[in-house]
Amino acid sequence: MSFLTHLECASCGAILSADVPRNTCACGGMLLARYDWTPIRRSVTRESLRVGPASLWRYAPFLPATHSEGAVTLGEGWTPLYRAHNLERALGCNALFIKNEGANPTGTFKDRGASVGITRAVELGIRTVILHSSGNAGAAWATYAARASVRCVTVLPVDAQACTLKQCASMGAHLFVLEGPWRAAGAVVAEAARRHGWFNVNTLKEPYRLEGKKTMGYELCEQLGWALPDVIFYPTGGGLGAIAIWKAFGELREMGWVEGRTPRLLVTQYAGCAPIVKAFAEGKDRCEPWETIDIIPGGLRSPDPPGGAAILRLLRETGGAALAVEKEETIAALAEMARHEGLLACPEGATTLAALRRALREGLVGGHERIVLVNTGSGLKYTPVFPEPAPVRVRPGQELRLVPEQL
Amino acid sequence: MSFLTHLECASCGAILSADVPRNTCACGGMLLARYDWTPIRRSVTRESLRVGPASLWRYAPFLPATHSEGAVTLGEGWTPLYRAHNLERALGCNALFIKNEGANPTGTFKDRGASVGITRAVELGIRTVILHSSGNAGAAWATYAARASVRCVTVLPVDAQACTLKQCASMGAHLFVLEGPWRAAGAVVAEAARRHGWFNVNTLKEPYRLEGKKTMGYELCEQLGWALPDVIFYPTGGGLGAIAIWKAFGELREMGWVEGRTPRLLVTQYAGCAPIVKAFAEGKDRCEPWETIDIIPGGLRSPDPPGGAAILRLLRETGGAALAVEKEETIAALAEMARHEGLLACPEGATTLAALRRALREGLVGGHERIVLVNTGSGLKYTPVFPEPAPVRVRPGQELRLVPEQL
Repeated sequence: MSFLTHLECASCGAILSADVPRNTCACGGMLLARYDWTPIRRSVTRESLRVGPASLWRYAPFLPATHSEGAVTLGEGWTPLYRAHNLERALGCNALFIKNEGANPTGTFKDRGASVGITRAVELGIRTVILHSSGNAGAAWATYAARASVRCVTVLPVDAQACTLKQCASMGAHLFVLEGPWRAAGAVVAEAARRHGWFNVNTLKEPYRLEGKKTMGYELCEQLGWALPDVIFYPTGGGLGAIAIWKAFGELREMGWVEGRTPRLLVTQYAGCAPIVKAFAEGKDRCEPWETIDIIPGGLRSPDPPGGAAILRLLRETGGAALAVEKEETIAALAEMARHEGLLACPEGATTLAALRRALREGLVGGHERIVLVNTGSGLKYTPVFPEPAPVRVRPGQELRLVPEQL
Repeated sequence: MSFLTHLECASCGAILSADVPRNTCACGGMLLARYDWTPIRRSVTRESLRVGPASLWRYAPFLPATHSEGAVTLGEGWTPLYRAHNLERALGCNALFIKNEGANPTGTFKDRGASVGITRAVELGIRTVILHSSGNAGAAWATYAARASVRCVTVLPVDAQACTLKQCASMGAHLFVLEGPWRAAGAVVAEAARRHGWFNVNTLKEPYRLEGKKTMGYELCEQLGWALPDVIFYPTGGGLGAIAIWKAFGELREMGWVEGRTPRLLVTQYAGCAPIVKAFAEGKDRCEPWETIDIIPGGLRSPDPPGGAAILRLLRETGGAALAVEKEETIAALAEMARHEGLLACPEGATTLAALRRALREGLVGGHERIVLVNTGSGLKYTPVFPEPAPVRVRPGQELRLVPEQL
């Protein structure tokens, strides 16, 4: 059962009932799910969690689903946290970890929000959801909607990756491609939702996607033996993932399960779409819309991040930083993650390794610190980004000789 | 610690030490790892497994690694078993499950054999491994070899999928493409291994790949509440996976953890490469090499299955069957798995759904039975196979209308 009590506006503090579908507060602020901690403390212990399912639903008491047995699930979450011994040696770190969100069912961390969001949508009687997405969220929501027999409408950019388009279409989602500037996508979705009565599940436009994503924070702490890391590198587009992880840290303190300093947030963005990096460098409270997007296809395409102001606040509160990464650095970091650790990361995830290298050099992060890189997705969704292989051709009977450039 | 005691030849019964690298028995038979069950029974219970890791290493006492803390792991195994309620309704079944091996780190079940195989190779001091693969095993072994800093040499067919080629190359594997009949690949690998002193890790050419794969059988039983299913549909190329799963069932009986009838094996193959189906239909003891291969690119490219005779024996012993599936049926089944259950399966995995439909119609399987389909990999590795989507183009300000063909 759920200990969800109400929704609270993060801007004006309004208290709203959680029993009906809701998007944002009347003031426009994002809504946060709030819980009754007393019965949770009585019924859950860190020990009792150990026998929970190997998915984010191990944290059901901290989630908004009324009946977790009815959860729309494909085994999302409880993704592995790798100790990166080879990269530690290469970089001069003592305790480097990679959270591999590529292990989720559709190949990205977006499954967390979609699983909890669709579960809650079903409970609230919603029949059609709509969102815009550069691809990965679209694939995730289409997938969980298919499993729950909910209709899903998705707006994608013109250059959406073939892989995610096919994922969405296979799941029976209704697909639209937006001809025109991508920053218009939010308004297109809002208008369609209003006109047709569809439920808008865009980033921070409903409260439960965030609840799904916060489980990344719960998992990090549990996997580190109920300790907080010192610093987390997080590839940041709209901002929801990091906001959610730090909400989890607050809740875990509420439970008395973690203590010590709150981890520093190190945001990474592509240099070709870096509104948060720019605003942070200029000491601003909010982002200005980014004009010309020039990035590797995939995520981090968020020219006007809905969570921008909240992320900038988090960066200042935690003593963090925001770093922009070039395409070439990203591709080089992808290769390093593969050869050193056997991880076929996504480019967004590889930005964290490129940024870590720079942060170590510039003294933003120390080699003695406990560092987590979040790889948000599987490289299998990004095969066009990987360099073309050059295998050696052989015939039966011919000797296999290792060629120098492959050594 | 490990309870491995020795290796035993499946053909002549010879007993060999497990302390040195070994391929096959002197008689040519495959070698099976054997354990001392008395101390295992004393130290492991079904209850104690519940707090184990969410990977195949939860079964460490049943695996050959001397020190499981030194396991070369990326979180492989302990993949989700989905209850397929929507497909149950569509097919008229009561208890249909899908084991989703696509959730493994490189996207296929091959990770199980590679994790245990490379772990054991490191323990035995092996520096270079070589194998041939239609792609997925190559990607898996390249990945675990990279993580363990072992050299990996891989021979692939000319039409290997771009995705797996890129996986192998990213991991730093040495890649060869065989120009000539694919059935010559085994001899090419054997010759290179002999000449260069590399360790041949081809299917049934070393004993530990099988040990990794048997964990599928352990997981199925644990996930079904320590019960055996009635029937398992398994897409079968070389045969190792099914041999391994049924080895697990034998070991679980040895432990006294499961009882009742051994599950029937239902083998699926593509109609364009079906040596096991043909031999089974003709009542033969062994397969004849298949001449012209005409299949969907990917796995099940095994014209002369190394485990053919063992699979034919299993089919007869368990009262099973072998079914050939056409390409069109496979593609249709892929779409059904996606729209009904939210699973982007691989084509090999989809053959099991096509075969189940036929088996129900022909009375080979009853709707009241407990049925497991094994989806051996992720559809993300096979995006060229999925149909081209037809998204609707819209401009900002334009209304989103659902088009009939998308309804």
